[in-house]
Amino acid sequence: MYVNKQNRIRSIEWVDGDGLKLLDQRKLPHETCYLVCKSYRDVIAAIKNMTVRGAPAIAISGAYGVCLAFQEVGLEGLTSAIEEIGSARPTAVNLRFAVEAMRDVLKNSSERELKAALLKRANQLFDEDVQTNQAIARAGLALIPSGAHVIHHCNTGTLATADYGTALGVIRYAHEQGQWIHAFLDETRPRMQGASLSSYELAAFGVPHTVIVDSAAAYLMQVRKIDLCLVGCDQVAANGDVANKIGTYALALAAKAHRVPFYVACTASSIDRSASSGNDIEIEERSVDEVLSIGGVRIAPQGTNAWNPAFDITPHELISGFITERGVLLPPFSDSLNSLSLDR
Amino acid sequence: MYVNKQNRIRSIEWVDGDGLKLLDQRKLPHETCYLVCKSYRDVIAAIKNMTVRGAPAIAISGAYGVCLAFQEVGLEGLTSAIEEIGSARPTAVNLRFAVEAMRDVLKNSSERELKAALLKRANQLFDEDVQTNQAIARAGLALIPSGAHVIHHCNTGTLATADYGTALGVIRYAHEQGQWIHAFLDETRPRMQGASLSSYELAAFGVPHTVIVDSAAAYLMQVRKIDLCLVGCDQVAANGDVANKIGTYALALAAKAHRVPFYVACTASSIDRSASSGNDIEIEERSVDEVLSIGGVRIAPQGTNAWNPAFDITPHELISGFITERGVLLPPFSDSLNSLSLDR
Repeated sequence: MYVNKQNRIRSIEWVDGDGLKLLDQRKLPHETCYLVCKSYRDVIAAIKNMTVRGAPAIAISGAYGVCLAFQEVGLEGLTSAIEEIGSARPTAVNLRFAVEAMRDVLKNSSERELKAALLKRANQLFDEDVQTNQAIARAGLALIPSGAHVIHHCNTGTLATADYGTALGVIRYAHEQGQWIHAFLDETRPRMQGASLSSYELAAFGVPHTVIVDSAAAYLMQVRKIDLCLVGCDQVAANGDVANKIGTYALALAAKAHRVPFYVACTASSIDRSASSGNDIEIEERSVDEVLSIGGVRIAPQGTNAWNPAFDITPHELISGFITERGVLLPPFSDSLNSLSLDR
Repeated sequence: MYVNKQNRIRSIEWVDGDGLKLLDQRKLPHETCYLVCKSYRDVIAAIKNMTVRGAPAIAISGAYGVCLAFQEVGLEGLTSAIEEIGSARPTAVNLRFAVEAMRDVLKNSSERELKAALLKRANQLFDEDVQTNQAIARAGLALIPSGAHVIHHCNTGTLATADYGTALGVIRYAHEQGQWIHAFLDETRPRMQGASLSSYELAAFGVPHTVIVDSAAAYLMQVRKIDLCLVGCDQVAANGDVANKIGTYALALAAKAHRVPFYVACTASSIDRSASSGNDIEIEERSVDEVLSIGGVRIAPQGTNAWNPAFDITPHELISGFITERGVLLPPFSDSLNSLSLDR
């Protein structure tokens, strides 16, 4: 496990003169390998094949991808490269926002300054993400009772962001503040981000945790007191409907049935006001092999069909609040999210 | 794939002079291997390690295990062997019922006749299970609309029973009757009975099917019309609460939220009136390795903890009806189940 002096797992690192260094999350928790993207097309491939995943981490990677693209194709080819990068994965809105921010740099810089200006903006996006996550963690602390048992879905930690994390950042921060907290981690089929990545992070930071199969979360709420559910998000519509990793909706239904508060950790860059509701959000469907094989081991008979939506929509009615860099937003979300969302 | 002339997958077969031949379900769908149990302790091991699984299949195997036990330990050791067999797995009540039925044979037969009498009774239990399943399938047919899309959890087919199946038997029967039916199969973590076994059976019988991760079932109900959910059960309490494979409860909550009818296929031998509600049913917890590794491939970091209940409790309020060998039973279940349950 690679943890630097500041007790950091680094998932994304720009290395001057070399390229974008990504921790290969497909190999975790067993192997710590890095992939160095020297071309923007390497970045697109890394986003598509989930070497790097998590909406904020994808966004930052995409921003550095624009830096690589400028070095490769110059100003002429940059617009189409930016398009390509921005559509590497369809559901996470942060990526589209990040490439928009990079595109804005083109307007305000001369071609001579552009290489430095693009890199400066990508670094800014990186740093802002870390600061935003830490602000989310501070905002979330008030929601965590002493001796809390929480359920968390997917991975929303350092690995999913520039650093620190959103929902998992709240859990980590509570622990760092000396509060006793225990996390039940949904394993998160089909790609096992909970079992493989969130457990890896919480182990590194010393936070007590227990992995469960996704379908056991409802029964867990039936047999013991769970204080809250904490999830991240890939996109929030104007009315508060949330696109997040498949299984989030099932967890929210179970939380509702058990009156367990259900919070979404969210940055302003996850809100897309052009989507009025979840119906306007495109849900990526991925290869059936993700469902039918695990770690190269085939589970189902040859010829079996599967349905593999990578995300689902949780209607706003099931959400207790959004934990954001500007505090915890409560319903009605069409108002409260409006105050947070960015103009674009 | 082994399918005999009658288009049967045989999971349990008594072979005179040899022992109890079990299809090793841990190796499916890739390998068709048989394990021949020559000692009752082999049968207990096969039940514990899930070479054979499914409440009715376990019960029949246990009954043949009693035949083996008599051959090995004679009348003297038989009572304690029967105890051992009956407690091989705690949640499925059918096993306890089957060994009780075998114990009754002791009362009514002389020692000289006993070997034949025990085998006769085990064969009877086998045959009765097939007949019961076929009666369930006929009863369930009325619930299946034309062009039905159903969601099924775990495996409740030929492999889970003496033959034919309970919930999956209903699906198969509808197909055999020429009705168009399509089954979404919950993969059923952690042991993947849906992805590995139900898909194997439905492929053998030509029934259209699609595998989904368990946590996608709720989202599936959100985005398309699902006509009903069909599950089996391991034990039914007097009030209609159901113990079934982990994930059943989460599915029932999602069905409730979407007003999708939720039916449990159930034989009289699954009802235990001594359990007044689900609170009285013991839920087996199995090794954390089932969650943290798949097919020998470790998913989580070393040292990670997990919680692995093999079953959960679905409260009777979430159940639309029980499909039984005597027809479809509707609420209030405390009355309707009472008419079905066996005296013991």
